[in-house]
Amino acid sequence: MHINEENIKKLQQGDSLTIAKCITCVENELEGNLQLLQSITANPNTACIGITGAPGAGKSTLVNALLKQLTAQNKKIAVLSVDPSSPFNFGALLGDRIRMSEFYLHPNVYIRSIASRGALGGLHPKIFEIVDVLKASYFDYIIIETVGVGQSEVEIAGIADTTIVVVVPEGGDEVQTLKAGVMEIADIFVVNKADRPSADIFVKNLSILSHSKANDTWEIPVIKTIASKFEGIETLLTAIQNHKHITSNNVERKIFLTAEKIWRIIQQNKMKNIDRQKIVAMVKEKINSNAINVYQIAENWS
Amino acid sequence: MHINEENIKKLQQGDSLTIAKCITCVENELEGNLQLLQSITANPNTACIGITGAPGAGKSTLVNALLKQLTAQNKKIAVLSVDPSSPFNFGALLGDRIRMSEFYLHPNVYIRSIASRGALGGLHPKIFEIVDVLKASYFDYIIIETVGVGQSEVEIAGIADTTIVVVVPEGGDEVQTLKAGVMEIADIFVVNKADRPSADIFVKNLSILSHSKANDTWEIPVIKTIASKFEGIETLLTAIQNHKHITSNNVERKIFLTAEKIWRIIQQNKMKNIDRQKIVAMVKEKINSNAINVYQIAENWS
Repeated sequence: MHINEENIKKLQQGDSLTIAKCITCVENELEGNLQLLQSITANPNTACIGITGAPGAGKSTLVNALLKQLTAQNKKIAVLSVDPSSPFNFGALLGDRIRMSEFYLHPNVYIRSIASRGALGGLHPKIFEIVDVLKASYFDYIIIETVGVGQSEVEIAGIADTTIVVVVPEGGDEVQTLKAGVMEIADIFVVNKADRPSADIFVKNLSILSHSKANDTWEIPVIKTIASKFEGIETLLTAIQNHKHITSNNVERKIFLTAEKIWRIIQQNKMKNIDRQKIVAMVKEKINSNAINVYQIAENWS
Repeated sequence: MHINEENIKKLQQGDSLTIAKCITCVENELEGNLQLLQSITANPNTACIGITGAPGAGKSTLVNALLKQLTAQNKKIAVLSVDPSSPFNFGALLGDRIRMSEFYLHPNVYIRSIASRGALGGLHPKIFEIVDVLKASYFDYIIIETVGVGQSEVEIAGIADTTIVVVVPEGGDEVQTLKAGVMEIADIFVVNKADRPSADIFVKNLSILSHSKANDTWEIPVIKTIASKFEGIETLLTAIQNHKHITSNNVERKIFLTAEKIWRIIQQNKMKNIDRQKIVAMVKEKINSNAINVYQIAENWS
């Protein structure tokens, strides 16, 4: 892709074709991708929201409801739907594709599905870059939706300003078996399908847990929604705005995340010329010799 | 650490002090760590078992029961207990330390606790190296125990020959809300606390699911245990041995994992001289200027 002032301007103005081209460019490291990334500036007012949770929790329906509410307020929204691949067979794991066709053609909504790649089931090796392209455009909100698989949900917490973990009410005791680590990444809990009979006790127990983990600046709110009936969405949006306000004042976090990002880009740059397929081919050749010392091989790899 | 033939021999013979020194050496990249890793050879007969699952599932009690069974057979076992840190506060997340004091002093058992480190909650940046040290020693079994947090459980599947996911029976419907990705990494399911009333229906549903995902060489067995009463442990050990037999014939998997490992070591080597603290300091200085372009910074970083 040829990068010039006109392209950058069109990106900033939200031209969908330009956005699509820019994302494809960074996603596949096409010509000009580095120039593009070095030329753009993130809009500090864009709120980046991560939505994660087990399959069946109703994430897509929730995204749909958020789109309905936000478009009604004339907001501009980009949605990235990440489809995680399995760590070992490289195929799609869940096929839990986004179901929000009614907004595909909305002028203020940009929707893009990306498959996760790479060896160990992360979001996508270029997810930061893709989000940076969207941040350089004109969106008020960027929503990243992913199924909570492997490292993807931990990664999302490093990218999003606000991470929403969507759960469905089970028995009240279930709070204790909530996947470990979820308390650490959630900025907001959404208990969806809150018309289920066990919802109230589940919400109560989750709130107690959340209260016990509160710090000086934030206590994870537990918000009941019935996304399919559009209930609780306004309350959720208010919580998102409150959280955005808190985090934009958290300089420590900003420094940490920026440093992490630079670290990761340096790493990518350094590995750019290492050919994974060549390594595989070499291992294939030597695998039966029983004399593979991976440390020696790595040290000699140019 | 000074590496010589005597040290290597002592490591191979299972001298605990030497094992401890070697692990500390690679864990902290002390002098001689690369020389050590390049001098040792993994014992192909050692079975490396990963055990993961939510807190409270009874992983430690299960490890304890396995140790009891295996030591009775005069086997030699190393246990690595990984305590995952939180991605953002770098503190211990769960404090779910291993509870198996009765084997701490057993002559055929070596137990080591390692804290996970690094930015995004993985197992430990040197986990492969630590396991390689143990594989070069005299153990029949290496057991890695970790709470399923973030990427740690996906990583464990890349290290262990056999990954055991420990779950506790909830209502039978719960099978559907099993954390996504678990079917992908589990080689064996253990339903612990199988004396709970809901156990049978849970096991039945999990078995149906597991059967539907079976491939030509392996169907994930679902094994009922009551680890605290030592029930089901023999059946579990048989399943582990069966699986070890299958995987040692899976050359494709071996090639993939070896190539991944080499890739990871190359990456570590290349990043060795990049100082994280310097990046943080630089970001701190520039954070208020609003003109940080991480791609430019990364490219100029030497």
